[in-house]
This record gives sequence, structure tokens and C-alpha cells, in this order.
Amino acid sequence: MSPQRSAAEDLTAGLDLPPVFCPLESAINPACRAVERRAVDWLDGVGLCADARERAKAIGTHSAEFYSRFAPHADEDRLLPAVLWVYWGFAFDDARCDAGHYSARPAEFVPMASRVQRALERPGPAAGDDRYAAAVHDIGARFRKLASPVQFQRFVAAHRAWLAGVAWQVANQARGHMPDLEDYLTMRLHSAGGEPTFAMLEIAGGSEVPAAEMELPAMRALTEMAIAVTSLDNDRHSLSKELGERHASQNVYSVLLRHNGDSLTAAVQAAAGLRDRVLLRFMDLRQRLTPRLSMAGRGYVDGLAYGIRGNAEWGLRVPRYLVGDTAAAGEIAWAERPADDSPEPVPLPTIAWWWDV
Amino acid sequence: MSPQRSAAEDLTAGLDLPPVFCPLESAINPACRAVERRAVDWLDGVGLCADARERAKAIGTHSAEFYSRFAPHADEDRLLPAVLWVYWGFAFDDARCDAGHYSARPAEFVPMASRVQRALERPGPAAGDDRYAAAVHDIGARFRKLASPVQFQRFVAAHRAWLAGVAWQVANQARGHMPDLEDYLTMRLHSAGGEPTFAMLEIAGGSEVPAAEMELPAMRALTEMAIAVTSLDNDRHSLSKELGERHASQNVYSVLLRHNGDSLTAAVQAAAGLRDRVLLRFMDLRQRLTPRLSMAGRGYVDGLAYGIRGNAEWGLRVPRYLVGDTAAAGEIAWAERPADDSPEPVPLPTIAWWWDV
Repeated sequence: MSPQRSAAEDLTAGLDLPPVFCPLESAINPACRAVERRAVDWLDGVGLCADARERAKAIGTHSAEFYSRFAPHADEDRLLPAVLWVYWGFAFDDARCDAGHYSARPAEFVPMASRVQRALERPGPAAGDDRYAAAVHDIGARFRKLASPVQFQRFVAAHRAWLAGVAWQVANQARGHMPDLEDYLTMRLHSAGGEPTFAMLEIAGGSEVPAAEMELPAMRALTEMAIAVTSLDNDRHSLSKELGERHASQNVYSVLLRHNGDSLTAAVQAAAGLRDRVLLRFMDLRQRLTPRLSMAGRGYVDGLAYGIRGNAEWGLRVPRYLVGDTAAAGEIAWAERPADDSPEPVPLPTIAWWWDV
Repeated sequence: MSPQRSAAEDLTAGLDLPPVFCPLESAINPACRAVERRAVDWLDGVGLCADARERAKAIGTHSAEFYSRFAPHADEDRLLPAVLWVYWGFAFDDARCDAGHYSARPAEFVPMASRVQRALERPGPAAGDDRYAAAVHDIGARFRKLASPVQFQRFVAAHRAWLAGVAWQVANQARGHMPDLEDYLTMRLHSAGGEPTFAMLEIAGGSEVPAAEMELPAMRALTEMAIAVTSLDNDRHSLSKELGERHASQNVYSVLLRHNGDSLTAAVQAAAGLRDRVLLRFMDLRQRLTPRLSMAGRGYVDGLAYGIRGNAEWGLRVPRYLVGDTAAAGEIAWAERPADDSPEPVPLPTIAWWWDV
């Protein structure tokens, strides 16, 4: 056990992380194992991992399980490229976003990320692509074959928005700046990678959501709320891990601790309350919007819900976020009620409108 | 006359800038003057300009004329918010992108730009908005009223892509890095602001382009080519101005000078050849694609062409880009033939695919 791990365990030892409230259906794609095997073959073939350690870390993300929960009904061949992107995304995140050389150097991160983005977009390969750019170009070519041009361009736009969010995180890191809650939530809607993750739902599912539905303010709000809930859950999942690391991670707890002067216990409670209010609003709006949607639109919204639930189940078990052997390897104990059931809008301008649509 | 101006004139004195090749229809919206008056009232009311000097500079951009050439057939009430955004964009560009405190500080630019972007997107105002964020929020509210949700979200995504491109430019500036031509063109497709400018075409025009048309690779290529031509024309228009400034501006000439070791005369020739090859490809693809498009799609492509022509006419006359009294106040002499008429793809992976769609 490393010294950092001990320190992290000390910090969280007295911390009673409340169970997660998530009354949404759980499901997993039966092709999960088959896709995992194919994805590992791809990892080995595409040259994304520099060594055995990186390879083991990539496999340990359980990305196949992750997206098999988001898209439980997808055909294996449609699930595969989405899963490849999740493996890619975690590898890129670990190497170049949350840690590593670029993670506090915006003047270098932005040009590098812009080149990666173009590698995804452009139809042809380029000799100058590094291993991350070449691998995401390969994934882009797979999407272009499977998806409609509209689905593909939605993914491309979502991918750009993600990298812009990460650039904000990197910029904060460079200045040692801890954002306030308003800025943090805006940033996290992008930096967490939720946009490309959810943009793959309709590629995996196969049905294109009509533009007039996809861009409805209520549909935008549902997508953003799903991203917010999964991001806050990921903050929770990685709390122990991040407390054990040397740099001041930007997460909802450090934001609340820094700006509200709360104790960690109070911050955990406040974050759970915020997250549950958003989830309740998501569930309410989903129920009201669904009857107005096409089959493709319903499938997309179902995917948002599977994603919220699947991300929570995956995150509570995946080795990526576990410190020591606090693994919840067995049954997950879920919260029976929300930490906060207020139906009022959260009074932050960046998200308050989710309650108005 | 300031010393910088003299220096710029010395540098460009022996330089024979070739005339612009642009065999596209010229047109201007008859509501131009009326919209200009309304836009100046808006500038005065919204508090975008800090003082009389900034106000005069904003008015001197001739933004009303600029967009009246892009959308010659738009209704006055639809043209107005597009024109407001052009005034806003030039003001933001001058104060925070191309010059000023943020222009070489990516760690500060990215968070600031991300807040501005969210101010555009979110339906409600926020007390924390600075004058640029508040003004773009006002424009966003006008677009949301006039445009369909699809049109509005297309503009939002284009706006984000623009700011990501500017972040790249700011990052290069911070490092004193001059990109190569491949990177420069990729960056400029975003940083020049062509995406939001062209995304307003269908808001001003009123007809929503079907998603299946808008995301066709050929349509994407037409949009990118229109952005490339207008960006290269803007590099040409601002050559004298930028040569007179102290910092090493990133433009196609400095890129070619730095990496190809060309003389300025050779760089000017190479840039004109590149620009004309792209324009010829645009014209050829436009002709082939148009019969397959809906009325709304044709209107959009017509707008791309009006924009290329209008940007050139505006840029050759606007005080913004003129040094001393080299103003072409009268008739513009256009080139009779392209500087390079090769139909072969330009051999740069980021754009070579424009010749394949």
C-alpha cells in the first residue's frame, strides 16, 4: 500500500459517504463480454497503450461494461465503436487531461486537443497524427461507416465541447484556481465527457433522433441533467482516489469546501442534495416529455436514464475509483430516498432554467 | 501618422498585392442603413462600448454593411440580430482575442470565453455577466425568439467552435509559436469566426436547412471552404495593418514566411493560389450539389457565396483594415482569372478531403 493510499484512507476514514439514490432501471447488453474481447484486440492493434502497465489500466476501466449499461439493447457491431471510444477517452483523460504533462499547461493542451479533434473529424488519415489522434481517427472512421451524417456530426460537436471543457479545467489547474459552484457546474457539463458519451447513444441504438426533437430546450435540459448527475456521481466515485493525489482536484467537494467553508461531511451532504434534486427533475421532465417524442427520441431519453444508472453501478465497482479494498464487489446498497427532494430550481443561473422548460 | 503606420507602409510599399478573384454575385440588403441605425442604438443601450473611442471603432467596422452583403434578401427584423452579433464579435475580437490582456493568456482566456459561451446558451440572465457576456446573452435571447431551436443550437455550437479556435490562437501567441500551414488552416477554420457568421444565414433567411442536408459531407465541405476563402481574404485585407503591429500575427503570410522561407512576394503569391484553388472547388461543388438540395439548402449555399463575395467587398473598403489612405474607396478592380487553377486537391490532410466529397 502506497503512502498516498494511506493518506486518502485516513481522510475518508471518518467519512460516511451516503448511498446513491437511483430509482432507474438497470440493464446490461448481453454482448458485453464479446465486445470487451474485440475492444482489447483493438487496443492491442491500434497501438494506443505504450506498455503493459497502460494496457492493464485501460482494460481495468471496464469500458465495455460501462457502455454496455448505457446501451443495453444495441447490436454488438454498433456497441463496439462506442466502447472503443470509451476506452480511448479514459486513456486520453488519464494521460493528457486529468494528469500528465498537459494537465496544467493550457498553451500546450489546446493545440494538442485541437489536432486530436481534427483527426476525429477529417475523413482521411494524416502522417502527423500521434497515437491518440490516430486511434480517435480510427474510431471516427468506424462511426462514419455506421452512423448517419447527422449522428456523426452531433458526436463531433459533442467531442469538441468536451475538449473545450477540459481546456477550462486545465486552465484552472494552471492558475491554481478553484472555481465557484456556478462555474464548476458549467465546466463539468463539458469537461466530464458526458456529451460525447451520450451522443453515442443514437449511433449505438441505430435510430436518428429528429433534429426538431433533439434541440428542444426540454431535450437539451434532459441531456444536461443526465450529464450533471453522472458527473456528480463520478466526483463521488473518485473522491477517495482524488483525496489521495497530490494536486488539488477540481470536484464538487473541493469547490464546496473552498467557497462555502463547509466541512467535508457537510460538502458531501450538500453535493448529494444537489445531485438528487437534479435527478428528480430529470425523472419528472422525462415523464412529461416522453409522450411527445418519436420512437427514436424515446430511445435516446431511455438511454440517458440507462446511462445515469449504469454509470453509478459501474462507478461503484470499477477498480479505477477504488482505494485499498473498499470495493463494493457485491450488492450495492442504494438510498431509499433522495437526500433533498425540493422541487424548486437550484438557484444558479447556469442550471436554473432546467426547471423552466 | 504613427510610427507603426509608417513602418507598415514601408514593408508593404514594394508589395504588389494582386487583385482578388471572385466571380460571384454581389448584392446588399436594402435594409442596410436602417439596420445600422438600429444597431447603433443597441450598442448605446447595451453598454458594450466603454467609451467614445470604442464606440467609434465599433461603428467603423461597418458590421451592418458586412452582414447585409451576406444576407441580401433577409427581412430587416431577421437581419438585425445577425448584425448585432457581428458588431459584438468584432468588439470581442479586438478587446479579448486578437489583442488585449487575454490575447496571449490561455489560462485566463479559456475560462472567460467559456463564461461568455454559457451566457449565450442559457435562457436566463446572470448577475455575474460582464459587458461582453451580457451583450451576447441579449443577442442570444433575440435569436431564441426568431430562430427555430435547431437553428439556435447550430449557432451555439458554431460559436463554441469559434472560441475553441481562438483559444488555439491565444495558446500559440502565449508560446510565441507560429503554426505550420496544416495547423494554421485547421485553426483558422474556427478562429476566424466564419462558423457563427455562416450559421446565422439560416436565422436571417428564416428557412431551416434539413439536418440531413446540413450535415452532408459535401455541405460541410462547402461551409469549410467558404470559411477558408473568407479567412484568407481577411488575412489579405489586414496584411498592412498587421505588419504595422508589434506582435507576430498569425496569418497565412507569416506562416508561409516562417516555414517555407519564402519572400513576402512569394508568400503573397502562394496564398492567393491556395485561396483561388479553394474558391474554384467551392464553385464547382456548389454547382454539382445545388440540384440535390431543398429550397432552404439552396438558400444556405447561396448565402455562403454571397458571404464570400460580400466579405471581399467589405474588406477591401472598411477602415478597419486600411493603413494610411490606401483605401479603395471607389471601384474595386477584380482579378480576371485565378492565381492558380489547378483542380487537384491541396495536399494537406486537413483539407484534401474537400476534393473527395
